Amino acid sequence: MLYREVAYSGAAAFCVDLFTSHGFSRSESALITDVLLCADLWGIESHGIQRLMRYHNEIKNGMVSVKSRPELAAHTPVSAVIDGCGGMGQLISVRAMNLAIKKAKTSGVGMVAVRNSNHYGIAGYYTKMAVKKDLMGICMTNTEAIGVPLFGKKAMLGTNPISLGFPAEPVGFIYDAATTVVPRGKVEVYSKSEKPLPDGWAVDAAGQPASDAAAVLENIMHKLGGGISPLGGGGELLGGHKGYGLGIIVDLFTGILSSGKTSNHLSLRPDRSDIAHFFMAVDYGIFGDKAEIKAKFSTFLQELRDSPKADGQKRIYTHGEKEAGTMAKRRKSGTIPISEKTLGEMREIAGLQKLSFPAFL
Amino acid sequence: MLYREVAYSGAAAFCVDLFTSHGFSRSESALITDVLLCADLWGIESHGIQRLMRYHNEIKNGMVSVKSRPELAAHTPVSAVIDGCGGMGQLISVRAMNLAIKKAKTSGVGMVAVRNSNHYGIAGYYTKMAVKKDLMGICMTNTEAIGVPLFGKKAMLGTNPISLGFPAEPVGFIYDAATTVVPRGKVEVYSKSEKPLPDGWAVDAAGQPASDAAAVLENIMHKLGGGISPLGGGGELLGGHKGYGLGIIVDLFTGILSSGKTSNHLSLRPDRSDIAHFFMAVDYGIFGDKAEIKAKFSTFLQELRDSPKADGQKRIYTHGEKEAGTMAKRRKSGTIPISEKTLGEMREIAGLQKLSFPAFL
Repeated sequence: MLYREVAYSGAAAFCVDLFTSHGFSRSESALITDVLLCADLWGIESHGIQRLMRYHNEIKNGMVSVKSRPELAAHTPVSAVIDGCGGMGQLISVRAMNLAIKKAKTSGVGMVAVRNSNHYGIAGYYTKMAVKKDLMGICMTNTEAIGVPLFGKKAMLGTNPISLGFPAEPVGFIYDAATTVVPRGKVEVYSKSEKPLPDGWAVDAAGQPASDAAAVLENIMHKLGGGISPLGGGGELLGGHKGYGLGIIVDLFTGILSSGKTSNHLSLRPDRSDIAHFFMAVDYGIFGDKAEIKAKFSTFLQELRDSPKADGQKRIYTHGEKEAGTMAKRRKSGTIPISEKTLGEMREIAGLQKLSFPAFL
Repeated sequence: MLYREVAYSGAAAFCVDLFTSHGFSRSESALITDVLLCADLWGIESHGIQRLMRYHNEIKNGMVSVKSRPELAAHTPVSAVIDGCGGMGQLISVRAMNLAIKKAKTSGVGMVAVRNSNHYGIAGYYTKMAVKKDLMGICMTNTEAIGVPLFGKKAMLGTNPISLGFPAEPVGFIYDAATTVVPRGKVEVYSKSEKPLPDGWAVDAAGQPASDAAAVLENIMHKLGGGISPLGGGGELLGGHKGYGLGIIVDLFTGILSSGKTSNHLSLRPDRSDIAHFFMAVDYGIFGDKAEIKAKFSTFLQELRDSPKADGQKRIYTHGEKEAGTMAKRRKSGTIPISEKTLGEMREIAGLQKLSFPAFL
């Protein structure tokens, strides 16, 4: 696919214009854009500006409600439940994580479960919010079911990613990973290049190992059976029961604790997704001296990075390191790569929403 | 291997006698025994009575201190840090989880990090303690390093298992799994039967895929390099970076938050293991009506179990179901299977500690 380097500022201005054209305030639009382009700055293209058309459609279709405001459904000094009322996932999630952070600062820990939301973009954005405040951050979300239970053949669980962030030097630890073996995007890449799927990624409508990426996606989209395997693969040999269990745990924290919906009941109507999230912040000072704990963790991560490399490997990474490196480069150049396909979609959206065409379009 | 069905009561009495002979009180000995035999009742032989010789040796060698008492090193209404002072892992852990439960009941959540402990047996025992009190329970432990980082060739991380329990009907959810693709015990089984290891389980001293189980164990034991791969395997294709990250997270909660030691610094001396744990309990009533939340989760688990089976599969399980089934059978029969090898070790220990020989020995 062809890419063009586009000025971050120009891309951001376009996104803000787009969201504003849908009725979001300038500050709301800026916040949504910040989450969206964070993914591009980190090099996580799947969750970046290439989703603009998807968000545009979800707002148009009414799945995302522009005017609804999240409601506090329950709260204690250490917890809260927020009803997202079908609003924009990013706005609800920033508010929820800020609430978790506030509770962590006063009570040591804050846990906020969110129901009736929408896709929230890149999970690491929210855990990074906590890390910036020198806290531990955790977040999870369920997603439309595309993963099959171990020994099953019907998609019942979402990719259900887990993110955890913790301060460290020289770079914070940001873990962010689906509990399925891969997210849908990776299967799409194989489909586009017509490559057979690796063993252990997916099963067909009969629950048997599948290598035809296009067929797997077709089956998922039309709910014909089959789907992506849990982390650990389709059997117990490589730990498929572990990824399957982690997927259940994410639905417990999100759909269940929020009194919302679990993966298998999401997005069954075009006008609502019912996605649920969970956010947690911990002031790790409740366990001891923060500087010492942070230094100790930084040392541990450095020991991992410095440990002997497998023959043929040059480097051992810790989580968040690659993203921080990519962001530093892109902040310096002031640009992000956008595919010609996405640029085409942006031109289309600009026409539909009667937005001014920035120079790069 | 040959097994004999032994009366649970007789096996338990023997264990209590053994621990008492080492200087533990009757009630301490009964508690250690309860944790130990819980594994046998659940069918998790690897963590059950077959470890008796190992515990006996650790007590004899001074790695486990009989007389030391855990100390409260820090605490807030939602948290605590316990210094295990090298005591018996099971005794320290029951106390730590009880403290987490107490805090959860008053503050909604309790998190207890433990340093300087020893092997704590089966993790699900502690999360089940919370479940029995109608709470969510979480626990983690680090262990001696036997897992290699992604792209590494030196064991830096333990099997670092995570357990999470939550009440449900007809059977509670108990997740308990190593963050390595398999625990050491599974490699030992392959070694004993001289079968080649499955792809993705382990790497050799050069960090390359290894199939020789005996060589892998030898390398781990003598710290010659190589070890077990993270959940997701030795590369990124099947998500090895995910299991590797989960392993780091467990060391963060255990070795780091407790101001203790991380996996790569454990058991470097014969007289101390320095194992660290983390326990958490959550009164999920802080999120809403407990009966409704529990019912909702029970329904979700039932939907998973009832979902269509892959061709050739008869049943989809949820976590904790197999163990509950095995326990019900064994409670009914009043017996647990013990291997002749373990019975031989028990005879040996009985001789060494001058214990009376029960009839089954």
